[in-house]
Amino acid sequence: MSTGTPRTFNIVCIPGDGIGVDITDAATQVLTTLATTFGTFNLKFDTVDWSSKNYKQRGYYAPEGGVEGLKKYDAIYFGAVGWPDVPDHISLWQMILPIRTTLNQYANVRPTRILPGTVSPLSACVADPSLLNWVIVRENSEGEYSGHGGTTPSTAHAAHTVATEVSIFTRVGIERIVRFAFETALHRPRKLLTMVTKSNAQRHGMVLWDAIFYEVAREYDGRVKYDKMLVDAMTVRMVNRPESLDTIVATNLHADILSDLAAALSGSIGIAPSSNLDPTRAFPSMFEPIHGSAPDIAGQGIANPVGAFWSAAEMVRWLAGADGASNNEGVVEGAGVGNMVEAADLLMQAIANVTERGVKTKDLGGKSNTKEVTDAVCEEISK
Amino acid sequence: MSTGTPRTFNIVCIPGDGIGVDITDAATQVLTTLATTFGTFNLKFDTVDWSSKNYKQRGYYAPEGGVEGLKKYDAIYFGAVGWPDVPDHISLWQMILPIRTTLNQYANVRPTRILPGTVSPLSACVADPSLLNWVIVRENSEGEYSGHGGTTPSTAHAAHTVATEVSIFTRVGIERIVRFAFETALHRPRKLLTMVTKSNAQRHGMVLWDAIFYEVAREYDGRVKYDKMLVDAMTVRMVNRPESLDTIVATNLHADILSDLAAALSGSIGIAPSSNLDPTRAFPSMFEPIHGSAPDIAGQGIANPVGAFWSAAEMVRWLAGADGASNNEGVVEGAGVGNMVEAADLLMQAIANVTERGVKTKDLGGKSNTKEVTDAVCEEISK
Ligand SMILES: CC(C)[C@H](C(=O)O)[C@@H](O)C(=O)O
Ligand SMILES: CC(C)[C@H](C(=O)O)[C@@H](O)C(=O)O
Repeated sequence: MSTGTPRTFNIVCIPGDGIGVDITDAATQVLTTLATTFGTFNLKFDTVDWSSKNYKQRGYYAPEGGVEGLKKYDAIYFGAVGWPDVPDHISLWQMILPIRTTLNQYANVRPTRILPGTVSPLSACVADPSLLNWVIVRENSEGEYSGHGGTTPSTAHAAHTVATEVSIFTRVGIERIVRFAFETALHRPRKLLTMVTKSNAQRHGMVLWDAIFYEVAREYDGRVKYDKMLVDAMTVRMVNRPESLDTIVATNLHADILSDLAAALSGSIGIAPSSNLDPTRAFPSMFEPIHGSAPDIAGQGIANPVGAFWSAAEMVRWLAGADGASNNEGVVEGAGVGNMVEAADLLMQAIANVTERGVKTKDLGGKSNTKEVTDAVCEEISK
Repeated sequence: MSTGTPRTFNIVCIPGDGIGVDITDAATQVLTTLATTFGTFNLKFDTVDWSSKNYKQRGYYAPEGGVEGLKKYDAIYFGAVGWPDVPDHISLWQMILPIRTTLNQYANVRPTRILPGTVSPLSACVADPSLLNWVIVRENSEGEYSGHGGTTPSTAHAAHTVATEVSIFTRVGIERIVRFAFETALHRPRKLLTMVTKSNAQRHGMVLWDAIFYEVAREYDGRVKYDKMLVDAMTVRMVNRPESLDTIVATNLHADILSDLAAALSGSIGIAPSSNLDPTRAFPSMFEPIHGSAPDIAGQGIANPVGAFWSAAEMVRWLAGADGASNNEGVVEGAGVGNMVEAADLLMQAIANVTERGVKTKDLGGKSNTKEVTDAVCEEISK
């Protein structure tokens, strides 16, 4: 545990597009309040404007060397990217996907819970909402997002055009994410890990994934319970038996799909956080709500900032493990640097108190706007 | 419309494994009752034992030339395949996947509705259950199920092992399934088609898919409304705004996942049917419930036969379009051969009456076994 002079962390914000801007503002306000309240750590914010608007004007999102430049920060706070006038595959491959891979952020962690005062669409069936409590560990560096493949001849108009998408799975990539997931499960109350693949239909990479999973699993025998699901059947289990799941590990694409489903089942995609982690801590990790830029409600001041706050809490929790205060897989035991584990807990509690009081945006059935929710969370923190 | 001597259709049953056997028995009983009641068509059944048990004994599912031999039938009725003692990728690649591709069954059609007397897990939010009424059109011949790829070196134990899964998308493959989906939408009350891809992250095959979709869409402008979703966001829309969806078209893997989710949201995977269609009618089509072999309840006589009956109804509806009684995309207008459109409708009505009366298996919240549900449906038919 650190004592003495508060440690300063340098955060770079990439608000990006649409509601990404609103919720990044809200998150920095809440984070600043949190740091001031604690006084045991400082957060300094820089902002870069890597937006679709700038792309249209200049022809790029991040300037030459921009992604490399992120390495000097302690963490990255990301709003959202994507705008109707730029094809999504361009905005993503110029921005978010290169950041994830360049900075070795191979673990994407997505917790799901039903917040107090909010209602799950499954409420007719899920007796006790606290039983829906999941962490999805998403492989974030390879697989279906490798980007390999092509189109020949490269026009949709040729009668014989063929395109491929090549998913690449490496032993290194599978093993490290599986081990990370077991470590995560080990530190959760229920200590249960469910592995998801589609190894019945996809007989190469998915079969390798299964084999490596069971190999790593042996190291955790007796300490973590584990089981295996096919991705299609997994959606059924999430709907029908949410209480049977705890920690989940899956490929880049499968976990992308399952984490959106998880968010929807927990009440709103507007509350869902995500952490893009480099568990080795060689490079900064990145924290982002999963909702996206939401062009339909952008600029109206009504975006739900809860996913942004929850992501901010995850960032604080991660930074608590700086300077060797965490194990190899990034797990922090104890209070961490500058009491920041406690700070993250307080922020989560503040969010829960606010939703419980009914200060909620429309997607959660409330009437409040972004500013009202933000102010309420800040008040709870300073109380 | 045909008159005169009843037309005879030759059906081959592949009961397969586990509850596949129970529900195929139940389906043939119901189909026989249906044909007898109408008297305008005959159904003759052959059965082949291509099971995992036989695989263990003989080393194969279908014997040499077996899949080719299916071509002489008018339709295939499939139970389920898969058993814990055979790796799934073996059972599937020896059986169901080769049948789908060899017989040109490129369209997999999966309707979803909430049956009377059954409850959706979304019931707290979906005011009117009749608003969840979807047809998922799944590309069934290529994409993520192409089987291409490999593992080098071929042991999980090498530190540098790499595996690939290669998804292949052809212009022909995309165009025909998109057109099939538009034709399907055109014949549905709401005339709305939603196309699902992941073209933001997968920038080759998925981008081609989008381009071809919009090309074909022009032919249907003003006749079918259409929109586009990313597969992750699609799960959110299915949970939050089920009434905003009607017909859905997606790749082999995406639609596999979404159709399981759809079944779960409609109440039970036990009721969900699927049709593997060769829209050109050059080869027989195949009809199967999507629930699988369910080893945990196999042989107990308690499997839900509703998915099997619904699949049987879809088979009867498809056969109604034999002999040129359907258009190029397999859509039948009018009564079809031997009044079989009416027969399919009657079977669906019989199922609905039975679930409404509460004669249901455990997965639907009832207390009846397979035989009781089957007998009740037969009674309804002969009434
Ligand atoms: C924006 C997009 C690339 C992204 C993904 O697919 O990874 C998003 O859906 C997410 O879940 O973070
Ligand atoms: C059994 C399996 C190959 C199959 C699939 O993935 O296609 C099943 O899940 C289905 O949906 O028909």
